Amino acid sequence: MRGFQTFNPHLNDFNSTIYYSSSVEEVEFALQKLQEVSLTFSNSTAIQRSQLLKEISIELSTNKQVIQSFYCNESGLSKERFETEFSRTLHQLASFSNFLEYEWEKLEIFTNTFENSPSLRRKKVAIGPVLVMGSSNFPLAYSTIGGDSVASLAAGCPVVVKAHPMHVGTSLEVANCVFRAISKLELNEGIFQHLIDDGLEIAKQLINDTRIKAVGFTGSIKGGRALMDLASARKSPIPVFAEMGSANPVVFLEHGFEDKMEYFTTIFAQAVCMDAGQFCTKPGLIFIPKTIKGDELTSFLIQKVLNQSAFYMLHPNIKNNFERLKKERASISPNSFYESTKILHDMQGRQAVLEIDSDFFLKHVQLQEEVFGPFTLIIRYFEFEDLENCLLSLDGQLTGSLIADRTQNLHFDKIVDLLASKVGRLILNGIPTGVRVDQAMNHGGPYPASSDSRFTAVGTQSIYRFLRNVTFQDFDLVF
Amino acid sequence: MRGFQTFNPHLNDFNSTIYYSSSVEEVEFALQKLQEVSLTFSNSTAIQRSQLLKEISIELSTNKQVIQSFYCNESGLSKERFETEFSRTLHQLASFSNFLEYEWEKLEIFTNTFENSPSLRRKKVAIGPVLVMGSSNFPLAYSTIGGDSVASLAAGCPVVVKAHPMHVGTSLEVANCVFRAISKLELNEGIFQHLIDDGLEIAKQLINDTRIKAVGFTGSIKGGRALMDLASARKSPIPVFAEMGSANPVVFLEHGFEDKMEYFTTIFAQAVCMDAGQFCTKPGLIFIPKTIKGDELTSFLIQKVLNQSAFYMLHPNIKNNFERLKKERASISPNSFYESTKILHDMQGRQAVLEIDSDFFLKHVQLQEEVFGPFTLIIRYFEFEDLENCLLSLDGQLTGSLIADRTQNLHFDKIVDLLASKVGRLILNGIPTGVRVDQAMNHGGPYPASSDSRFTAVGTQSIYRFLRNVTFQDFDLVF
Repeated sequence: MRGFQTFNPHLNDFNSTIYYSSSVEEVEFALQKLQEVSLTFSNSTAIQRSQLLKEISIELSTNKQVIQSFYCNESGLSKERFETEFSRTLHQLASFSNFLEYEWEKLEIFTNTFENSPSLRRKKVAIGPVLVMGSSNFPLAYSTIGGDSVASLAAGCPVVVKAHPMHVGTSLEVANCVFRAISKLELNEGIFQHLIDDGLEIAKQLINDTRIKAVGFTGSIKGGRALMDLASARKSPIPVFAEMGSANPVVFLEHGFEDKMEYFTTIFAQAVCMDAGQFCTKPGLIFIPKTIKGDELTSFLIQKVLNQSAFYMLHPNIKNNFERLKKERASISPNSFYESTKILHDMQGRQAVLEIDSDFFLKHVQLQEEVFGPFTLIIRYFEFEDLENCLLSLDGQLTGSLIADRTQNLHFDKIVDLLASKVGRLILNGIPTGVRVDQAMNHGGPYPASSDSRFTAVGTQSIYRFLRNVTFQDFDLVF
Repeated sequence: MRGFQTFNPHLNDFNSTIYYSSSVEEVEFALQKLQEVSLTFSNSTAIQRSQLLKEISIELSTNKQVIQSFYCNESGLSKERFETEFSRTLHQLASFSNFLEYEWEKLEIFTNTFENSPSLRRKKVAIGPVLVMGSSNFPLAYSTIGGDSVASLAAGCPVVVKAHPMHVGTSLEVANCVFRAISKLELNEGIFQHLIDDGLEIAKQLINDTRIKAVGFTGSIKGGRALMDLASARKSPIPVFAEMGSANPVVFLEHGFEDKMEYFTTIFAQAVCMDAGQFCTKPGLIFIPKTIKGDELTSFLIQKVLNQSAFYMLHPNIKNNFERLKKERASISPNSFYESTKILHDMQGRQAVLEIDSDFFLKHVQLQEEVFGPFTLIIRYFEFEDLENCLLSLDGQLTGSLIADRTQNLHFDKIVDLLASKVGRLILNGIPTGVRVDQAMNHGGPYPASSDSRFTAVGTQSIYRFLRNVTFQDFDLVF
């Protein structure tokens, strides 16, 4: 049996604990448990599920210190970031708990009998056991008991988490909190299963198993697409909600930023570099007009990006991939490539910017691709049409940002329409990072930003990913 | 250029008009038109789209006679059935028109700024151009301006219809009504495109084109799955809503039917045979207990099915396929196969019933498959566990029906749960045919009943198939 270790970026060394991938028998056992509890859990009341989420929250809070220790040691992320992500995780649990208590009943649609028509009561019911894949960059909020798991449990779907191998220790600690909450409430343990694998075999086995009815994933386009392809090739295809790559275009229009250069360059430099740019909403394409003020903004922004503090990257593989992509970008146009020259720890990400013209951008499609890490591409456009062509050429994106003043720019409405046609969220005069957990949030977007633009991965509306419909006809005398 | 003709089942001969498949140029032209109008139509107001639906309704009513003539001549369906389906089509248009006027605005979710959080306004926006495939058995209500097209237009998605080759004449007449409505309102003609093909080439070309963003289909599992596979293999996969096969299990429990044998055998015999059983919700599997009363019910039901009036089948291919499947079923257990011996027109469907035991059913998986036509399978069960095992073995279904009295049967709740886990709609003491167009309706179900159990194909909620989310962040001062 082959063991594996997690990695501590601060120490630039592996953590000592050796983990082992779950065995074939453990996977089968988990699947059986999920299957057995599926109908019962689907029939649990919303209040029961709300209590479960509350109990999980209590357990997490009780075990906060040990979770923090694993979290920081396995990700290189700071204690401040832990606090933010931990709070976010509790907030997600509380939001769904609240949703179950006050909104769940409203999901039902009822129509009375009239004339010769029957009475109809449409209920939302759990889609069945959900596979949640832990994500590399959010060990808490998008992993073990992150957005996908909480939405699934809220929907009444049992969950099997495939822990992300980079933070298995964190995942186990969090899973133990869930186990304790389940046991405390004397619920069936089948509701939540936790499996470990440092490869892809178990995920493949799970996704090909008929007992799994949906998948939640946050990660790369390559990874998400592989899951989508497996799921759609099944005898009974299942939905995969994959939140994947996004370059998050930012458009500076003339007459919108000139008076607030300091402010905009500061917030965007931070958004590019914070936590080493390891966010799915990091602004990766910044369109700036080729004007005198645009020149100023560009050099100001480049300077600020290069001067930001460096952050640790999550893992050597991610660091190496970042360096490789950065080198590729640099080789494309060495004279307009800027990289920080600070003395850094080996595992810190060295921020960089490439500045090119819009013509050049249109000719090099690969420049659209997300670079995961503290890098951004500045694209300078002469005419409005150049900007338009660039935006038209883009794939689907999680977010778009527009820095503009509607009263002063004739193209405002046109750009809003164009950006909205490409993104899942459009931000006016602000940064795309910091995804508010809210019912009005949309985190997703046209492919490849996500696998299905009709759903969100963040906020209580994300529960719809894991609910199907059943209409009960003429049951009004019974229920 | 190869022409093709539609078929008149009453005359057992082809209709005289020769139709030609659309050319590659026509397909490309349609796609360009769709693409050009996509953003504008998406930005149209709900009231504008409501007006379009109303205007289409007026045009259909004005041209009712000519549509009826094509409809009956191309399908073998009766004038009574035409009336029902025509009314249903107008009702669908009116429902969505009403939805746009009174419900559309409620789809928006808004959250104000608080503390340092941004304001969020989540809107539903059109997913983009939709391919609608005409269905064989509903030349009006699920075809040219049927449920899928109306839901798409209501959502703000331009539509390209690929007419069903069996009723191209009907489809052209209906399309002309839509064209006239668009022209009367001076809308862009790109909103609605109509293409003809008696093969699969054009559908393939359309579904593989990046300008198409979603697909609506009603038909066979084989056909729906082929579309799903094409859509998920695209560089940018798109959602396909396919409403496919279903055997629509009916469960008679002891102590629920005994006092109403006449009533239940009448309504179920009609549901099996009406319009030659060419409905997606035709009851195709009827579970009856092996009791003395169950024996009575069975022989009564068989007799009534065989005595029903015969109806024309839609097309020789459908008729031949029905005869082939019936022969297969008969060969499985010749002694318990019953077939009407009336003298019939060549194109009428000869109704039949096969009666088997639940053990036999469990051993022959192919018996679960839908037989499109006036045939049903009666499965006799001894013990409740036998029934349970049969139901557990079923694939996803559009509907399930339960004939039972809750106060008198201990297994009532258990069977409700079990059936609900397999179906999209569960009917108590009634027949599954006759799908009410309503907000509380669900027409869909776990695969293979439909491609995605999270959506419905009937009723105003079906609009969600063609809407994605965009959240506008901090735009409150602008909108």
